[in-house]
Amino acid sequence: MRYIDAFNHFFPKRIYELMLQSPAGQKDLGKRMRGIPALYDVKERLRVVDSFPDYTQVICLGMPAIDRLTGPDHSPEWARLGNDGLAELVAKYPDRFVGYAASLPMNAPEAAAKEAERVLSNGANAIQLHTNVDGAPIDQDQFLPIYEIIERSGKPILLHPIRTREMADYRSETTSKYEICSVIGWPFETGAALARLVFSGIMDRFPNLKVISHHLGGIIPYFEGRVAHSWDQLGARTSDEDYSLILKKLKKRPFDYFKGFYGDTALAGARAPTICGLSFFGADHVLFASDCPFDKEKGRGYIRATIAVMESLDLPKEDMEKICHRNAETMFALRKS
Amino acid sequence: MRYIDAFNHFFPKRIYELMLQSPAGQKDLGKRMRGIPALYDVKERLRVVDSFPDYTQVICLGMPAIDRLTGPDHSPEWARLGNDGLAELVAKYPDRFVGYAASLPMNAPEAAAKEAERVLSNGANAIQLHTNVDGAPIDQDQFLPIYEIIERSGKPILLHPIRTREMADYRSETTSKYEICSVIGWPFETGAALARLVFSGIMDRFPNLKVISHHLGGIIPYFEGRVAHSWDQLGARTSDEDYSLILKKLKKRPFDYFKGFYGDTALAGARAPTICGLSFFGADHVLFASDCPFDKEKGRGYIRATIAVMESLDLPKEDMEKICHRNAETMFALRKS
Repeated sequence: MRYIDAFNHFFPKRIYELMLQSPAGQKDLGKRMRGIPALYDVKERLRVVDSFPDYTQVICLGMPAIDRLTGPDHSPEWARLGNDGLAELVAKYPDRFVGYAASLPMNAPEAAAKEAERVLSNGANAIQLHTNVDGAPIDQDQFLPIYEIIERSGKPILLHPIRTREMADYRSETTSKYEICSVIGWPFETGAALARLVFSGIMDRFPNLKVISHHLGGIIPYFEGRVAHSWDQLGARTSDEDYSLILKKLKKRPFDYFKGFYGDTALAGARAPTICGLSFFGADHVLFASDCPFDKEKGRGYIRATIAVMESLDLPKEDMEKICHRNAETMFALRKS
Repeated sequence: MRYIDAFNHFFPKRIYELMLQSPAGQKDLGKRMRGIPALYDVKERLRVVDSFPDYTQVICLGMPAIDRLTGPDHSPEWARLGNDGLAELVAKYPDRFVGYAASLPMNAPEAAAKEAERVLSNGANAIQLHTNVDGAPIDQDQFLPIYEIIERSGKPILLHPIRTREMADYRSETTSKYEICSVIGWPFETGAALARLVFSGIMDRFPNLKVISHHLGGIIPYFEGRVAHSWDQLGARTSDEDYSLILKKLKKRPFDYFKGFYGDTALAGARAPTICGLSFFGADHVLFASDCPFDKEKGRGYIRATIAVMESLDLPKEDMEKICHRNAETMFALRKS
């Protein structure tokens, strides 16, 4: 089976060096990144990719988002450097890196729109967005031009979770200790961001926007019952805003928007959850992805485990091909196999 | 099949009236509660129960937690009134309400310990705790005597999610608008509270504590991959505290504690997620529950949908009996069928 890995992370040389020089990079971030060579060392990364037959990657930057690392004065330049670095890797190693998802300097929305225009007309295969912008929601009006540009390009958004300010600021409090924030808070953030895209009306305004949510939809598929029935009753639990008006304004049932999103298989090789998420999104809306290189082996672990899950599912050949490579080929506008 | 509904909500008369008189009850809360007669009107509730053959309930109070409604001066009395009301219903209608889970005034920890002693020696079948106490984590030292009392009783904790202060305080910000907080934030809170019980060492200190997590484990089962592999690497993403010491101190792999918790089937009648959660916990650690009466029909909807899911699963008879009633009979010390 041909596998195209739709969501995994790599820092090209120049952006990696900039990040190491940032205040965060001089502390924790740098220490952590240096411990995972396949995250920044091309040779090591190619070794990882080449250890799987008929396996290629659509690459994008890792965490944190550029707008968490540097202010609006510098983030446009950082994004450009990061994106050009990714594009160079794709040009140099087209048999391993079949495409890339560009990052935007979202804390400088006008520059972000310009960067989106630039990369999408230069061959970027997707745009990587995060579930909030330095803690603020992604459905603000200032971001609408960006969604318009992405929708017009036909390319998808890869939506990556990042903790909100409220979670980050209360680290010693209930939800943030013990890395709760990243381990299980992230999938919640993904669900929250998808909900904001729905209820803000952005998905009605840009109905052809394709959003691929990391970690197979985050919290959404396992809670499809609540997503369906609790949100059908939006307004029942609060009355400081009349949420029932929102339901009337939406063009579809809330549940149907969530079913219209896409998910990737990056669940660290968990089989039953993969079946659950696949049941929610359907084979046309799931893309193979590994989250490489954040496994314990620092590169190969999640790729191997996720391929093993896929091969254990005994799916119809057509569905298997869609998930493993055909959906990626279509959505990222890659050469068809 | 005999069904014992392990987690559903009812307000006995006296506590219901007190709640209506509270500041929250005079606004939203009262309006919302009045709209669901099966939540406080015994006759209506009995009609709901009686519309299903061989179906009974273990009842407990609804949301919000008593310690969110009134301060430590009054919460012990409110808890006592609520618990006595539940006990009276069980005594009066033993064929419909086979048991009850008592609430504790957790914002008055000493009184909470006394109330736990009182109800557990008077026949309470479980203790309902919430995932935080007015925003603060449930693994604080002041709560240790309560866990000790519950463990000694052999009865389980029913763990119900409630939003943290950080989420509540930032309603207009990223995660809390559009009822995101309750619809998908709650299952995250459940996972966060379970993680606090694990990493604080409480589950090592009270290894026989049985925790039944509402909504089939919240976010945990769908993210079993992250729960396993990311928490095996605890400390990799932070270094302001040396979390690797925590891993060394724990007696088991973090993942194994999560597998040792229990879950209920209250997923609003979603089939694929039920299979996913059952695969995580196993038939010995799952209890049938409906979350009655918070469905759109205000009583019967989730019961009917959850029974339909159970009957569609084609489980071995023994597993089906465990989930539908035998685990409840054992854990709540009910009369065996």
